[in-house]
Amino acid sequence: MMEDRIPGMGERGTLLDRYRTVRTTTEALCAPLANEDYGLQAMPDASPPKWHLAHTTWFFETFILEPLGVPLFNPQYRYLFNSYYESVGRFWPRSQRGLLSRPTVSEIYQYRATTDERLKETLLSINEKQFADLYPVMVLGLNHEQQHQELLMTDILYNFSINPLRPRYRALPEAVGGQAPSSAWLSFPGGLVSIGFSGDGFCFDNERPRHQVWLEPFEVLDRLVTNAEYWMFMEDGGYRRPELWLSDGWRQVHEFGWQAPLYWYQEEGEWYHFTLGGPRPVDWDAPVAHVSYYEADAYARWSSARLPREAEWEAAADTVSGISGTFLESGRLMPQPVESGEDSVGLHQMYGEVWQWTESAYAPYPGYRPLSGALGEYNGKFMSSQQVLRGGSCVTPHEHIRPTYRNFFPPQARWQFSGIRLARDAHG
Amino acid sequence: MMEDRIPGMGERGTLLDRYRTVRTTTEALCAPLANEDYGLQAMPDASPPKWHLAHTTWFFETFILEPLGVPLFNPQYRYLFNSYYESVGRFWPRSQRGLLSRPTVSEIYQYRATTDERLKETLLSINEKQFADLYPVMVLGLNHEQQHQELLMTDILYNFSINPLRPRYRALPEAVGGQAPSSAWLSFPGGLVSIGFSGDGFCFDNERPRHQVWLEPFEVLDRLVTNAEYWMFMEDGGYRRPELWLSDGWRQVHEFGWQAPLYWYQEEGEWYHFTLGGPRPVDWDAPVAHVSYYEADAYARWSSARLPREAEWEAAADTVSGISGTFLESGRLMPQPVESGEDSVGLHQMYGEVWQWTESAYAPYPGYRPLSGALGEYNGKFMSSQQVLRGGSCVTPHEHIRPTYRNFFPPQARWQFSGIRLARDAHG
Amino acid sequence: MMEDRIPGMGERGTLLDRYRTVRTTTEALCAPLANEDYGLQAMPDASPPKWHLAHTTWFFETFILEPLGVPLFNPQYRYLFNSYYESVGRFWPRSQRGLLSRPTVSEIYQYRATTDERLKETLLSINEKQFADLYPVMVLGLNHEQQHQELLMTDILYNFSINPLRPRYRALPEAVGGQAPSSAWLSFPGGLVSIGFSGDGFCFDNERPRHQVWLEPFEVLDRLVTNAEYWMFMEDGGYRRPELWLSDGWRQVHEFGWQAPLYWYQEEGEWYHFTLGGPRPVDWDAPVAHVSYYEADAYARWSSARLPREAEWEAAADTVSGISGTFLESGRLMPQPVESGEDSVGLHQMYGEVWQWTESAYAPYPGYRPLSGALGEYNGKFMSSQQVLRGGSCVTPHEHIRPTYRNFFPPQARWQFSGIRLARDAHG
Amino acid sequence: MMEDRIPGMGERGTLLDRYRTVRTTTEALCAPLANEDYGLQAMPDASPPKWHLAHTTWFFETFILEPLGVPLFNPQYRYLFNSYYESVGRFWPRSQRGLLSRPTVSEIYQYRATTDERLKETLLSINEKQFADLYPVMVLGLNHEQQHQELLMTDILYNFSINPLRPRYRALPEAVGGQAPSSAWLSFPGGLVSIGFSGDGFCFDNERPRHQVWLEPFEVLDRLVTNAEYWMFMEDGGYRRPELWLSDGWRQVHEFGWQAPLYWYQEEGEWYHFTLGGPRPVDWDAPVAHVSYYEADAYARWSSARLPREAEWEAAADTVSGISGTFLESGRLMPQPVESGEDSVGLHQMYGEVWQWTESAYAPYPGYRPLSGALGEYNGKFMSSQQVLRGGSCVTPHEHIRPTYRNFFPPQARWQFSGIRLARDAHG
Repeated sequence: MMEDRIPGMGERGTLLDRYRTVRTTTEALCAPLANEDYGLQAMPDASPPKWHLAHTTWFFETFILEPLGVPLFNPQYRYLFNSYYESVGRFWPRSQRGLLSRPTVSEIYQYRATTDERLKETLLSINEKQFADLYPVMVLGLNHEQQHQELLMTDILYNFSINPLRPRYRALPEAVGGQAPSSAWLSFPGGLVSIGFSGDGFCFDNERPRHQVWLEPFEVLDRLVTNAEYWMFMEDGGYRRPELWLSDGWRQVHEFGWQAPLYWYQEEGEWYHFTLGGPRPVDWDAPVAHVSYYEADAYARWSSARLPREAEWEAAADTVSGISGTFLESGRLMPQPVESGEDSVGLHQMYGEVWQWTESAYAPYPGYRPLSGALGEYNGKFMSSQQVLRGGSCVTPHEHIRPTYRNFFPPQARWQFSGIRLARDAHG
Repeated sequence: MMEDRIPGMGERGTLLDRYRTVRTTTEALCAPLANEDYGLQAMPDASPPKWHLAHTTWFFETFILEPLGVPLFNPQYRYLFNSYYESVGRFWPRSQRGLLSRPTVSEIYQYRATTDERLKETLLSINEKQFADLYPVMVLGLNHEQQHQELLMTDILYNFSINPLRPRYRALPEAVGGQAPSSAWLSFPGGLVSIGFSGDGFCFDNERPRHQVWLEPFEVLDRLVTNAEYWMFMEDGGYRRPELWLSDGWRQVHEFGWQAPLYWYQEEGEWYHFTLGGPRPVDWDAPVAHVSYYEADAYARWSSARLPREAEWEAAADTVSGISGTFLESGRLMPQPVESGEDSVGLHQMYGEVWQWTESAYAPYPGYRPLSGALGEYNGKFMSSQQVLRGGSCVTPHEHIRPTYRNFFPPQARWQFSGIRLARDAHG
Repeated sequence: MMEDRIPGMGERGTLLDRYRTVRTTTEALCAPLANEDYGLQAMPDASPPKWHLAHTTWFFETFILEPLGVPLFNPQYRYLFNSYYESVGRFWPRSQRGLLSRPTVSEIYQYRATTDERLKETLLSINEKQFADLYPVMVLGLNHEQQHQELLMTDILYNFSINPLRPRYRALPEAVGGQAPSSAWLSFPGGLVSIGFSGDGFCFDNERPRHQVWLEPFEVLDRLVTNAEYWMFMEDGGYRRPELWLSDGWRQVHEFGWQAPLYWYQEEGEWYHFTLGGPRPVDWDAPVAHVSYYEADAYARWSSARLPREAEWEAAADTVSGISGTFLESGRLMPQPVESGEDSVGLHQMYGEVWQWTESAYAPYPGYRPLSGALGEYNGKFMSSQQVLRGGSCVTPHEHIRPTYRNFFPPQARWQFSGIRLARDAHG
Repeated sequence: MMEDRIPGMGERGTLLDRYRTVRTTTEALCAPLANEDYGLQAMPDASPPKWHLAHTTWFFETFILEPLGVPLFNPQYRYLFNSYYESVGRFWPRSQRGLLSRPTVSEIYQYRATTDERLKETLLSINEKQFADLYPVMVLGLNHEQQHQELLMTDILYNFSINPLRPRYRALPEAVGGQAPSSAWLSFPGGLVSIGFSGDGFCFDNERPRHQVWLEPFEVLDRLVTNAEYWMFMEDGGYRRPELWLSDGWRQVHEFGWQAPLYWYQEEGEWYHFTLGGPRPVDWDAPVAHVSYYEADAYARWSSARLPREAEWEAAADTVSGISGTFLESGRLMPQPVESGEDSVGLHQMYGEVWQWTESAYAPYPGYRPLSGALGEYNGKFMSSQQVLRGGSCVTPHEHIRPTYRNFFPPQARWQFSGIRLARDAHG
């Protein structure tokens, strides 16, 4: 769902400023890359950086410029950089995005610059009615690009992780947190709660409509599960005990030989993990990241707990004021431990750090309506066999996250910054 | 969840009578088979009839006799006929169940007869405490065998369907229904409803606990979608229009070349489908069957409707008194049209005929507790990437179905008798 | 190439006698099977016994009866039991031969009996010219059925081998040989030798024409490699040393975890192998069997030797008078050690026991002409990516083998009775 | 087999000159590439240009410098750029060569420059004995790099061919040939011929020893099969007639939808093919290229002919004086028609243009001895399931080809410049 407010006369400049900021940020994220890194797709799910740069541009060209009759930069890009919009036409197969050495990186940057220029000219020249119509699409395009900023980071991490030379994206600062405080269960009364977006500002269509959900009383742990805690699960045979796992998860464990979170490896008895800053010793106080839903679920079962339902998560989040945590802008690019002094009573780490797997399958809210036209494919058609994640991560842009934000990935996905918060039924 | 009532002294005979009935029914279902049909597994999901006969016996042997120290009929059967109970030990791979010509059919029947005899002796000789402990396991075992009676029918249908000789299971009676009445939307107020099992009698653990769910007002169509209606979807390009499909479903359509429900085929311009009675012209008034969740969902989208959530379905079902419809005992083995005279106002075909796909992913109810021990693997570990189906089908034993019954299959499954009931948000 | 001799008047009876013998033998080989065993195909290469019974019948029906206008037993059998004759029409996929529970075993035997009867009537009623034309096809059909007698045995062995119950085909006699004599190299002068079939009697088209080949002087080992010798290769790290292997073979070793010949397994430190008589301790003096070309080649390299070229093998075989060894008729169904007293100077075990892999790829002889029509597909179209094997095995019918006989299998095949004879260049 | 001659004192400079020429040529071939093209591997068989640059360098480092104690440029390159030498150690999987964005192109060029420098220093500083020992390895390394020059061209062509932007490597000159002359059969007497390398100069181990082969009289067509001729095969249903194909080939036709040579495509009724110069109309007079062995064999059968055996090819080639044709140095990068005026009696196009598939499987010559040590893996371990090709192609360096040269590829390979020359048995 896009903003439906009618923009005023003076907002074009503001919108263009924001456009410029978002677009510049994307390019700045690519600055540490070598030219060779731009085209790499080390697994089907991880798109090449070059593709992200082009696809986000394609989005503005296709949904803003093309309907206004602005000529295409290159008609073949319509096919090459369409991600999955069947209504727009055919698209180059996702798993083969890494097989295109052309267009070159420089051509893609030219594509971006030209599109930016055309967009600016267009926005300044259209009439009020046209601007009002396009405004929500522009805002959607900016949010879309922010999503790809996060994917850029997670895809680069994956791409580098398989290289025996262990290249790093860039040097990272040391972790700031101290020792993780002991965790505590916080109680919530449940009852008839409202979830979903309402009010001003942007949200995706899948966050609407705001609606009521009945919840039994429940408890949520006040911070994320740490690497140290997850390691105890591993040491206790977590990956070898079928009774802890969903059936599909147990099959994954065996088929892919899972023994630890993605990116963890052992050398001379010590545990390391591969990060955007290269190999690092595991920080035991930091939140565990890069676990699948199956691992999160197994860890929860081992803990005699469960994962939160998404309505529980949102009801709990509604008790927190403000949105703080580690986000993309911090440049930390790794989830951080609870800060010293942050160990006051209350919910910590609800935002940033790692996406929190929920027990809820990704499904339409009651009364859900996808956007009309091709943009209706943005979210709705993925509502099967995926789980909802909440809260954002250390590579999510800060302004991009909301309490009502619904991220979703298949239960086996591990390459996102995905972690664990525990919940349980209230003790009666 | 099994019955937790303490059985009285005189119930052993009653239980054994019921045991005998269920066991005899299973064997009677196999009577029309040739010896050669017993070992066939035409796809990984469809187990050989021989395996069903053995596995249901293994269940009683493993969970009743073995704990009491009764010697095993054949120690290797423990491995060969375990389906998926990791806690019991290793098991022969599911996809290779059809690769075992031995034990022979006659040996399996001997296994059944011996186990039946031992079970009878055991049940009559144990003390009160032992009987009270085993009683719920016995009841679970009988419900388990009823589930396999249904699978026997659907697996035999699949196994025969791929044979160019088009063998039939047995002659089937003609359909009894007349012309399908026009359909009507029925309104339900929603609000805070209770779903899930409570009260006496048996239910599976996944139906508990009974709990509250908030529902917006909704509407449900008063009968199942017919073959004629589904054909109109096909004629309108249903299988060629990506905007109607979930992304995963659209991929299935292409990968497997779906163009119609499973078992449908065209000959000289006429549509036929393969049934347990062999090839038959499609009965346009009968409910459509053998569609996947993806097809049900696409059909609903084409109809400007949606599939019901499982709580909606159950709330609607609670307004119907009694459980009537076409079940296994009728011997019809095909879903039937709404009977003439049944076209009164109200919900029709809520039970029997075809399982009704719901929009709800299979997930634990709030407060869900799996059974303890190995039997905890019965249901709980499948709670990912599956959809709930409700209402039973024409090959479900009548006494096996309940308003709270939750069946579940992956969204791509088509070989069950699975069909479509439409729902929609109430018009405000 | 079929016999091209013109048959005399009195030969019809003789031919029918031979027909009856061959057909009866095939059925006798199936006598030990349970009905359930007939339909099993435990891997794509191993056809169900039922299919062998039907396909050999199909051959006579298709190439003898149908051209004469005799009606088909069942028109669908034309499709179901065609193996690979594109010229005859479409055929049921090879890998799915085990998915047909119908026709039943009894129906297949009826198919055989009816076809036998029709064939007899036909042969006795056609005129001289017709008989002369059909005579070579009849002889080809008989040789074809003998090939399937061998495949019946090797397929049954494979089908049983994967069953944890370890069923046996039937009790086998003890081995007759004694201790394997030490082996010796025999020298052959090479030069311009003639190989390939000439003269009277039947041969396949791939054995013709007889032609000249130039050979350098070579040596051949006077007996087959024994299980004891092969075990030494294993103990010396044979399966762990890449320098011994062809590149494709090394990949197989890893992909499939080869560590010993097919059917070998270790229990409590002792080596057993699965045979048509069930599990047996490995007979160290018997020839090694069930090794692939890759294993034979690696063993030869480990021995500082090589495998014989097929012309070398045939030139050596030409120095042996008569064809003796263990064949199907012996009922031994396992390769036997060199008999005591057989350790005289000269070539032993050139025939029977195990097929001997040669270094020669299967290719047309100079001047090769396939049969005309559909029967031209019998041999010629397989002349790529296969290796020639020579000499027959313990499950080859005695009268079926010849010095010029060319068997062929892909280099990774192991389920035939395939073994090793070593050769080397003459020491200068 | 490497040169075994003892190099004289003055040869170091000559060798270094040749080294410099070969190395410079490789880099010059990469000059038209964009940086982005260097890392691309569009199918498992086609290595990235960057990998070719590094691997050829690795060869000199591993087999010349490392044994002399020269430190490695980067110890991890030993693993990353080993192709398949098990004796040297583990190697990065072939199919994942395109997944390494690092080392960068510039680092690889640095690797080359440093290795070149070290090699020069080393060669000038070692003593006579050392030089004599290394000399044949140096020559092997140069021939090895020439092989990779050819692979660079064929891999780049493949990599570009799948890109919808149809990038071209560089502009190519127009074809020089005129209309293809009609073809004629040339007769050869056969008899006892000698094939294989002898004499001075370099050859690979698989070309030795020179030995005798008996050949029946045969005929060879005096020029290569043209695109026009191959098109007639296509028009005559060549890809739809199973009787023309080997069984494995027919399976490929269906599995991969072959309908024309690789790189051919039709647009508005006209046939084009993709070349290193980008898309071009098919030149009907030029030799057909990019056909598999299966297609060559099917074409030959359609022509009532066959492919030559390799000994026939070599015996025929021995009647031609000199080695002329289109080679890499010409810069034409496409096979050329027979030149006008070249239509004199005699064999044309025996060298250059396209590799000529032979009917001979790749096998060791009688008396074959692989090189000792790791270099023994160069050729010998590929002697299964491959066919021999003869004569070189338009991207083979001129000095690299010889009458005795044996190239080999699997029968399904199409991305090399591989074409067809016909042969047949002499008419009696």
